[in-house]
Amino acid sequence: MPSETAEDDAKPFREFIGQPVSEVPTPALLIDLDLFERNLATLAGFMRGRKAGFRPHGKAHKCPAIGKMQLVSGAHGICAAKLGEAEVFVHGGITEVLITAEVVGKRKIDRLMRLVAVAPNLTVVVDNERNAVELSEAALAAKRRLKVAIDLNVGQNRAGLDTPQDAVALAQALAKQKGLELVGLQAYAGMNMHVVGFANRRVASLLALERAAATRRAVEKAGFHITLQSVGGTGTYNIDPDFEGVTEIQPGSYIFMDAHYRSIGGVDSEAFNDFGNSLTVLTTVISHPSAGRAITDGGNKALSTDEGLPQPKDLTGINYHPGGDEYGIIDLKNPNRRLDVGDKVEFIVGHCDTTVNLHNTFWGARKGVVENVWSIDARGRTD
Amino acid sequence: MPSETAEDDAKPFREFIGQPVSEVPTPALLIDLDLFERNLATLAGFMRGRKAGFRPHGKAHKCPAIGKMQLVSGAHGICAAKLGEAEVFVHGGITEVLITAEVVGKRKIDRLMRLVAVAPNLTVVVDNERNAVELSEAALAAKRRLKVAIDLNVGQNRAGLDTPQDAVALAQALAKQKGLELVGLQAYAGMNMHVVGFANRRVASLLALERAAATRRAVEKAGFHITLQSVGGTGTYNIDPDFEGVTEIQPGSYIFMDAHYRSIGGVDSEAFNDFGNSLTVLTTVISHPSAGRAITDGGNKALSTDEGLPQPKDLTGINYHPGGDEYGIIDLKNPNRRLDVGDKVEFIVGHCDTTVNLHNTFWGARKGVVENVWSIDARGRTD
Repeated sequence: MPSETAEDDAKPFREFIGQPVSEVPTPALLIDLDLFERNLATLAGFMRGRKAGFRPHGKAHKCPAIGKMQLVSGAHGICAAKLGEAEVFVHGGITEVLITAEVVGKRKIDRLMRLVAVAPNLTVVVDNERNAVELSEAALAAKRRLKVAIDLNVGQNRAGLDTPQDAVALAQALAKQKGLELVGLQAYAGMNMHVVGFANRRVASLLALERAAATRRAVEKAGFHITLQSVGGTGTYNIDPDFEGVTEIQPGSYIFMDAHYRSIGGVDSEAFNDFGNSLTVLTTVISHPSAGRAITDGGNKALSTDEGLPQPKDLTGINYHPGGDEYGIIDLKNPNRRLDVGDKVEFIVGHCDTTVNLHNTFWGARKGVVENVWSIDARGRTD
Repeated sequence: MPSETAEDDAKPFREFIGQPVSEVPTPALLIDLDLFERNLATLAGFMRGRKAGFRPHGKAHKCPAIGKMQLVSGAHGICAAKLGEAEVFVHGGITEVLITAEVVGKRKIDRLMRLVAVAPNLTVVVDNERNAVELSEAALAAKRRLKVAIDLNVGQNRAGLDTPQDAVALAQALAKQKGLELVGLQAYAGMNMHVVGFANRRVASLLALERAAATRRAVEKAGFHITLQSVGGTGTYNIDPDFEGVTEIQPGSYIFMDAHYRSIGGVDSEAFNDFGNSLTVLTTVISHPSAGRAITDGGNKALSTDEGLPQPKDLTGINYHPGGDEYGIIDLKNPNRRLDVGDKVEFIVGHCDTTVNLHNTFWGARKGVVENVWSIDARGRTD
């Protein structure tokens, strides 16, 4: 639903371009553009010349403007977590989209077919024959062939088929559906992204990749041609691309990073610092009623805590915790700087995806000056 | 920032009115209108004839349409958690607004004064002299007197002054600011709302109320006239209104309730069932890859877990947990009904405020049929 007040509030945003970030209304979701661009370049550089490509996951940013920058950096497409998110990307001008969750039910499939009319390469995952029949019927009614990938479970025990036999059976069922074109497999191993320690993570990822490869071999042996094998994310970006049969990885968080990701460790380091923490939330001290505590304007509605607490940047000797949904509480043990009402406190986000989903706007800044404002158009589009 | 795609997607919403809720795109935030209206009436009935009034907290719904229904039910105003939320309410036609967090910094104060031009009774809390001076200067520049209430800490150790002496000192400082009119005190005891057991909750609330009353007496003794003493919420709605000096309560969750609130217990019952669970999230089973698990389309981005898990309605013999941000995982131990791909699973939300903030739209339904669609206009407006 469009918001009239959002319209009213849009105009003033432009006035902040060229201003110091301290002028932006807080809590504000900031992108450090230098770090962000370096993250884009780091992943693109790592992938250059490899057989596999990369299709960044748009659920991390929900913003067509950022999706287009990823395409410019060398990505061959974008992932969308849901149909609603895909609608925003396609309407925003990005047509090479893989929807990474099953699209179920007549009304959603009707929406999907309207989207395919604009974006014929749109691909959707399937793991159920009845769903496949409905997708095919809708595609035939629209005089189209819909691209589908079989969704595999490689250990997360979420959506996706468990065994090679299940996948072969579904491939055979798909072959009877004239409205569908089986292009390949999705084998996202979400449970491996945050395995602590590179060596541990590598072993875990290779197990999942081998499970996917076994399924691919079985499906190919049954006579099917596989051109897509979509796997992995940010945590395994430097493990997955060269594995047998992989055609693309789906990294999302690499552009932003978060406190949780840093803790998993890198190849040669205790912190996973292949990518920089470009995403922060700027808050303002709105109350400092006693010597021991300062209160910010950022609580659960500005900073997610589902994967741990956000971490204050440039502020030590304190404890931070959310003071409910609207406030942050900073216990001032031995702070390295004085905090007065009106002062800013910046936090590295605890979990990028769920924090982004709380905000309407990215404020892109370089060396502390606002350079652009991007609308998080797919915010709330879980449908 | 306005979303072009939100515009595009608005039109189809109307087609769902008169349809069964099962037709609505999921995950969908549903309001059971029978329960919701009963909740409105229950609180209004309890407050009728009492000296204190009620000013429901709009942070729970972020929706001017619902705020107006609360006014019709007898509320004398609405609370807003932040300036951004107040802007949405005022632009939506609600002018009796108390902003319950401090508004700090020149740019926000300028916005505040633009809002006061539309809503002269707008009241804001203060707990800091420097902030008060800035508010006063802006009000004088706008040729207005801004209504302010002193924010008190009555045990939550968040924003608000700790002692009667601090409050008297601030009242005296406010008196020198010609742009301000001190109308009273805010003493919200958020830490008491979820105290388990009515007797325990009553004792805790009376302690906080007495702490606020002592401050009011000290401020009045210092020569100030107090016409506003704003306290309490849903958990103490039947404890606070008759306490000495209280002029209003700030209940938010009573219209919706949630799983967490139910657990606190009522006057004569183990569950707090004074109000019904009118707010649910409808999800769809999008995958059922093996006998033991069904996967829904509702994860952390559709159902908040900051105060505990959502609870499935009409579904027993299962375990539910979020499968990341986009999925729900239902472990089928001994389910009371069969779940197929395409079937719906409805959840009582774990925490209403943070779940509402994840969605763009309320779907109001009566006896399973969609009756209206309300935009959550202040979603994400933590600024």
